[in-house]
Amino acid sequence: MAQQKKMVEAITSRDVDFAKWYTDIVKKAELVDYSGVKGCMVIRPYGYAIWENMQNDMDKRFKRTGHQNVYMPMFIPESLLQKEKDHVEGFAPECAWVTIGGSEPLTERLCVRPTSETLFCEHYAKVVNSYRDLPKLYNQWCSVVRWEKTTRPFLRTSEFLWQEGHTIHETEAEAQEETLRMLQVYIDFYKETLAIPVVFGRKTEKERFAGAVETYTVEPMMHNGVALQGGTSHYFGDGFARSFNITFTGRDNTLQHPFQTSWGTSTRMIGAIIMVHGDDDGLVLPPRIAPIQVAVIPVAQKKEGVLEKAAELRDRLLAKDYRVKMDDSDKAPGWKFSQYEMLGVPIRVEIGPKDIENNQCVLVRRDTREKTVVSLDVLEETVAKMLDDIHDSMYQAALDNLHEKTYTATTHEEFLDIAATRPGFIKAMWCGDAACEEKLKEETGGVKSRCIPFDEEHLADTCVCCGRPAKHMVYWGKQY
Amino acid sequence: MAQQKKMVEAITSRDVDFAKWYTDIVKKAELVDYSGVKGCMVIRPYGYAIWENMQNDMDKRFKRTGHQNVYMPMFIPESLLQKEKDHVEGFAPECAWVTIGGSEPLTERLCVRPTSETLFCEHYAKVVNSYRDLPKLYNQWCSVVRWEKTTRPFLRTSEFLWQEGHTIHETEAEAQEETLRMLQVYIDFYKETLAIPVVFGRKTEKERFAGAVETYTVEPMMHNGVALQGGTSHYFGDGFARSFNITFTGRDNTLQHPFQTSWGTSTRMIGAIIMVHGDDDGLVLPPRIAPIQVAVIPVAQKKEGVLEKAAELRDRLLAKDYRVKMDDSDKAPGWKFSQYEMLGVPIRVEIGPKDIENNQCVLVRRDTREKTVVSLDVLEETVAKMLDDIHDSMYQAALDNLHEKTYTATTHEEFLDIAATRPGFIKAMWCGDAACEEKLKEETGGVKSRCIPFDEEHLADTCVCCGRPAKHMVYWGKQY
Repeated sequence: MAQQKKMVEAITSRDVDFAKWYTDIVKKAELVDYSGVKGCMVIRPYGYAIWENMQNDMDKRFKRTGHQNVYMPMFIPESLLQKEKDHVEGFAPECAWVTIGGSEPLTERLCVRPTSETLFCEHYAKVVNSYRDLPKLYNQWCSVVRWEKTTRPFLRTSEFLWQEGHTIHETEAEAQEETLRMLQVYIDFYKETLAIPVVFGRKTEKERFAGAVETYTVEPMMHNGVALQGGTSHYFGDGFARSFNITFTGRDNTLQHPFQTSWGTSTRMIGAIIMVHGDDDGLVLPPRIAPIQVAVIPVAQKKEGVLEKAAELRDRLLAKDYRVKMDDSDKAPGWKFSQYEMLGVPIRVEIGPKDIENNQCVLVRRDTREKTVVSLDVLEETVAKMLDDIHDSMYQAALDNLHEKTYTATTHEEFLDIAATRPGFIKAMWCGDAACEEKLKEETGGVKSRCIPFDEEHLADTCVCCGRPAKHMVYWGKQY
Repeated sequence: MAQQKKMVEAITSRDVDFAKWYTDIVKKAELVDYSGVKGCMVIRPYGYAIWENMQNDMDKRFKRTGHQNVYMPMFIPESLLQKEKDHVEGFAPECAWVTIGGSEPLTERLCVRPTSETLFCEHYAKVVNSYRDLPKLYNQWCSVVRWEKTTRPFLRTSEFLWQEGHTIHETEAEAQEETLRMLQVYIDFYKETLAIPVVFGRKTEKERFAGAVETYTVEPMMHNGVALQGGTSHYFGDGFARSFNITFTGRDNTLQHPFQTSWGTSTRMIGAIIMVHGDDDGLVLPPRIAPIQVAVIPVAQKKEGVLEKAAELRDRLLAKDYRVKMDDSDKAPGWKFSQYEMLGVPIRVEIGPKDIENNQCVLVRRDTREKTVVSLDVLEETVAKMLDDIHDSMYQAALDNLHEKTYTATTHEEFLDIAATRPGFIKAMWCGDAACEEKLKEETGGVKSRCIPFDEEHLADTCVCCGRPAKHMVYWGKQY
C-alpha cells in the first residue's frame, strides 16, 4: 500500500494545478516523450495505440459516408500556397520552409504542409473535367507542421497527426450538405466513441478558417471549464476553385466552378480525453478507444492455480475480441492496481484463491471504483455490459460538467463577473460586430466566441458587449 | 468491342517498352498523379487502397510478432543526424533541410527525416535504463524524404510512404534473431499476400545500409528480369548505442550498451506488384490486396431483373466480406470488361438474362482469362476458392519467371555475356573484394550484387571477376 500511495501522490491534484496535473499524466502514463526539436513530440506506444483506435473508428465512419483515402505530398511550393490570398495570410506565418534539397539551394522554397487545401486544389484542377467526375470525397491521414511558440503535448505542437477531409462538388447545396454531414460525424464520434459531449455550431467570421466561407466546430469542455476546438468542418464556396482555376463542364454544357469543403480532427483529441475524463489517479479512458480494456490482476499469484485461472479469464475475454492484458509481473497487486488506474484501464479483474474457490472474480470500474463480485459463468456478458455502462456514465458525467459550467449572461457586467469567477462557457447575445468579440476577449483575458449554435436561444435583445440590437446567441469561453 | 480495343491499345505493350508500359499503367489505373513538387507524387484512391490493404496485413504481422507502433517527429536536428558517422555520410547528401520556421531563420537547420534511426536512438537513451526495459519493439508508419535526381512513381520518389521498424535488445543474439525474424516476415508477406517470390540473403559490405553491421534483403524479380530491393532488415550491433550513449544496467549490475535493429518496406512494393504481375491489358492484382476483388458486371442490364440480380450477387459477396463493386453505369459491358481488366480486378462476374434463366453466372479470372460458368447456388464458395487459386497461380507464374531468368556464370566471359544478352539474375562466385563488385558493375552497365543467399551453392572455386579463390556465391542483377 505504501507503494500505491507513493505512486498516486506523484500526480499533482487536478484541483491544485490543472496544467501540472495534465503534464504529469502525459508523462506517467507514457503517452509522449519530448524530442530534441522544440515543440515536436514522440508519441509512445500507449499514446499511439489510443490514436490508432480513434483512427480505426473514424476511418470506418468516413468510408461509410463514401470517402476514400489518398495521400498528397508533404511539400507545398511557395507559389502554390500563395494562390488563395486569405489562406496564405492565415498560414504563412506558421510555416516551416525547406530551402535546401540534396545539398543544393532550391529555386523555390517549399512549405512543409500546415494543411493541404492547395495541394488538393492543384490535383482537382487536373482530374475534374465534367460533372461526371464529381463529387470527389477524399480524406488523408498524415502529419502537419505549424510553427508554434508555446507548445503543450497533444494540445499545441509544431507537428501533429491528423486527418484532413477534402471534397469537391457540383453544387453549392451538395457542398454545404457535406460540410454539415461531416460535422455530424464528428459530433457522433465524440459522443459514441470518446464519451464526450460537445457544443457545436458556426464560427464567427473572426474565427473562421483562412479561406473559408463558413467554419463549423465541435467544442468539448474540459473538466476545468476550458474549451478545446475539437474539430472543424469548412465550407469554401467556389473561392478556392476560382483561385486555382478548377472548372468542369456542367449538365447544361457550360463551364462552371465546383464547390469545396474540408474538415479535420487531430491528436489534440487525446488531450481532450485526458482533460475531460481524467482524475487525480490518472487517465480514465473511454472503453471504445482504450488500448487495454480489461486488466487481469492475479492476487496471491504464487498460490497454486491462480496464474492458470487468470490466464484462462484473459483468454476467454481475448476470444471475445476485448483488448486484455494480464499482469503476472512480480510487482505487488496494490502497485498493479494503481498502475492500471493510472493508465485509465476501464475494468480491472481481480482473481485470487478465494475467488477461484467460489467460482467468481472481482470487477472494478475505473470511472466509479465500484467493485462487483461476478460469477465466472457470466464473465463475458458482464464485461460487455459493464464497458457499455462505463461509456454511458463517463458521457453523463462529462455532460453534467458541461451543463454545470455553462452560464448565461445578459449584461456586460454579468459577463465580466462570470468570466472572472466561474470558468466555463457563457451563453450571451452578440451584435455581430468583431470589435465586440475583440473587446470581450481583452477584458476577460481570453474569453472568445466558441460558436453560434444551430438552435439559438433568445436570452436578451441586446449585445452583451455594446448594447446594440443582438443578432446571435453565442457560446463564449477560454480555450486551449 | 471497338471501345474495348481502343482502351487496350492505349497501353504500350510490355515487351515493346517496359518503362512506358509501367508509366501507362500507373496513369491509366489512376494509381498516382504527378504533383507540382519534383519527384513527389499524389497517391490517388485506387493506389492508396492497395497501400492500405498492404498496411493492414503487415501491421497484423508486426503486432503478432510483438511490435508496437509509435510516432517520432519528422524533423532531425543536424547535430543529431551527425552523431553516427557512417549514417550521416550515407544520408546527408539526400536530405531536404528546413532552415526557416515561423518566419525566422532557425539556429540549427532541421533535416526532414530520410529514416529515423537517430530519433529512435535519442528516445531510447531516455527510456532505456535497465535490462527490464528491454527489448523495445517499435514500428512506425510515416513518410520519409530522400532528395532524388531521377524519379519514377512508386519506385523512386523524393517522398515516399513506408514502415520502419526499430528495436533495441539486451543481447547481440536477440538483436540478430530479430533481424532475421523480420526478414522472414517480409519473405512471408511477399509470398502469402503479394504472390511474389523473392531471392533473399545478406548484402555485401558495399551495399549495406549506412551504419549497419549486416543488411539483409528481399529481392523480387520484375517480369523483365530486373531486380527491386524489396525490403531490408538491418542489424546494427551496438554501434548506434555507443554513438548515442545508450546504456542499461544489466542482470550482472554492470552498465552495458544494448543492440539494435531496423527494418523497412515502402510504397515501392506497389511498383513490384505492377511489374511482377501486370500484363498488356493493365494491372493484375494479387487478390489479398486488391481494392476490388470481384467486379459484378450486369449484361443487358436494361432487361427486367438483371440489375436486381446483379445487386443480389454483389450483396451476397459483400456479406462474405469480399471487396466487391457492381458497375451499373451506362457504359457498354465490353468497355467495363476492359476497364476492370485494366484495374487488375481478380474476378469478373458477368450476369445477364440468359444466366438468370439458368440460375448461373460467368466468372472470368483476370490472370488466366479463364471463363467458368457457375451455378448461383455455389457462388460464394466458388469465388473463395477461385481467389485462392488466382493467388497460387500468380505466385507460380512469378516463380517460373524468376527461375527462367536466373542464370549461372562460372567464368568472367560467361558473366559478361549473360549480363549483355539475358536480363535476369546471375548466380556467380565472388572473392569478397568490393573492387570486383565495382568492376562488374562498370563492365555490365549496372549489374550489382543483390545478396549472398543463406544457402550458397558451390558453382566454382574462383571469383567470376578476378579469378582469385571464391568466398561466396552471390546473386547479381540490375535493379530499379
